[in-house]
Amino acid sequence: MADNAAGLWETPAAEALRFRPGMQIADLDSRSTPGFVSSKIDGKRALHERGTVLSSLQEKLYANGRSGDNRSVLLVLQGMDTAGKGGMVRHVIGHVDPQGVDHVAFGVPTDEEKRHHYLWRVTKALPRGGQLGVFDRSHYEDVLVVRVHGFVPETVWRGRYDEINQFEKELLGTGTTLVKVAMFVSLDEQKSRLQKRLERPDKYWKYNPGDVTERKLWPAYQDAYQAMLDKTSTEDAPWYVVPCDRKWYSRIAVTELLIDAFERLRLEWPEPDFDVDTEKRRLAES
Amino acid sequence: MADNAAGLWETPAAEALRFRPGMQIADLDSRSTPGFVSSKIDGKRALHERGTVLSSLQEKLYANGRSGDNRSVLLVLQGMDTAGKGGMVRHVIGHVDPQGVDHVAFGVPTDEEKRHHYLWRVTKALPRGGQLGVFDRSHYEDVLVVRVHGFVPETVWRGRYDEINQFEKELLGTGTTLVKVAMFVSLDEQKSRLQKRLERPDKYWKYNPGDVTERKLWPAYQDAYQAMLDKTSTEDAPWYVVPCDRKWYSRIAVTELLIDAFERLRLEWPEPDFDVDTEKRRLAES
Repeated sequence: MADNAAGLWETPAAEALRFRPGMQIADLDSRSTPGFVSSKIDGKRALHERGTVLSSLQEKLYANGRSGDNRSVLLVLQGMDTAGKGGMVRHVIGHVDPQGVDHVAFGVPTDEEKRHHYLWRVTKALPRGGQLGVFDRSHYEDVLVVRVHGFVPETVWRGRYDEINQFEKELLGTGTTLVKVAMFVSLDEQKSRLQKRLERPDKYWKYNPGDVTERKLWPAYQDAYQAMLDKTSTEDAPWYVVPCDRKWYSRIAVTELLIDAFERLRLEWPEPDFDVDTEKRRLAES
Repeated sequence: MADNAAGLWETPAAEALRFRPGMQIADLDSRSTPGFVSSKIDGKRALHERGTVLSSLQEKLYANGRSGDNRSVLLVLQGMDTAGKGGMVRHVIGHVDPQGVDHVAFGVPTDEEKRHHYLWRVTKALPRGGQLGVFDRSHYEDVLVVRVHGFVPETVWRGRYDEINQFEKELLGTGTTLVKVAMFVSLDEQKSRLQKRLERPDKYWKYNPGDVTERKLWPAYQDAYQAMLDKTSTEDAPWYVVPCDRKWYSRIAVTELLIDAFERLRLEWPEPDFDVDTEKRRLAES
């Protein structure tokens, strides 16, 4: 079992992928594999080994949560259709004990959700202490699809960037570590992935005619993603920009980002809140 | 990949483990492996293969859910401390895509929960269409721990069996398939498992001094479990009685019970709600 990923990376994923001011996503090569210097085969093999490491770290967080620790980790996945958010959940989060995962997929807001502030449904879905939360889409939809389609006036969505920063600052203050992942595929790769969904009856259900309509709005989405990164990548809640044309790379990369976040918590097993010897005696007599 | 479990079982798990009127849990050998005729090694190997089968079936349910199908599967796990409910979630449900799982662990009711009907928190946690729900403990706590400790008068808990049957009948009517699993360990095996938790600092967090106190109430719990089985194992929502002293057995057994439940749904991939050729053309032009 690898206890680190040395050898596979020349630059750790958290460093290689972190959004830096001035970075332009228009220049991003979504087939690239930043930081990673080994082969696809090694990358795939590492996914299982590093998934096991992630699983151990998560168990420690869970154990602490059971002992009253308020800390949690929240993975936020944003990306265009076919970027691979679902596969990320299945193949990365799938390594972790389901008991410790709070997974939420945010779809088109329901009628009830629409009648509330856009952060209402997000706040309700936040992970409790000890949990690994996973947001498949998130509050960032409210400055992405909402901005692109003009579902609210510009004066409204313009104010949301600051509001989101403030919201996340409070989250950090209450013990939630955010891992924000922006997933990018190219327009060509998206076409190819959508085509595959139309070729196999067991994939039809993943296809949505609306996805093709959205492709025409690609430049507007690029602008919206760029603005999101520029305005909401902060020191303590940075965005990670993950090229996703190669699924194996994006999965091992996000696994490393999560491991990095967990390791920064410096988790120890919780101290017992009982006297071990007394309990051994009580148990023996029972 | 095994496409069936023939050869390992002389009687299918769903048949071998189904509670039958008159069955006495006092006579149950919790080290037994009903229906299973192969070795522990084969049982462990089968867990992975059959977990993959379960995962495929679950994906089909999920796909149908996305297409508006209301059906869901709900696994209910009941058992004394250390019976292995948590391990069941990790090692059986862990095979399934986290996106398709609604997992809920029911603990001591919160103050808010106490102020509601006991089915309130359960109803809120029911899986939506397309999901595999997992209840780690459930509404059955309200005729188990509640009965044993007399948290409510007998006249109250006596009425709950019928009420639960009625509740589950409605669930079935709205498309939820129930897989109710009663997990049994022996008093000795429980002691040994609790001892292990006291021997390793990375297991202390799983230990609760209250578990030893509960051991003294074992006969009363046996009575409560027997009554639960007698009164709430119905034709369409039967209990399965799973001996759990051998973890490898209980895990492969529950995997088979779930596969059986999914197969009875006779799921097909959903039909597309769009014209495939039209979409291929639209996509090519996009």
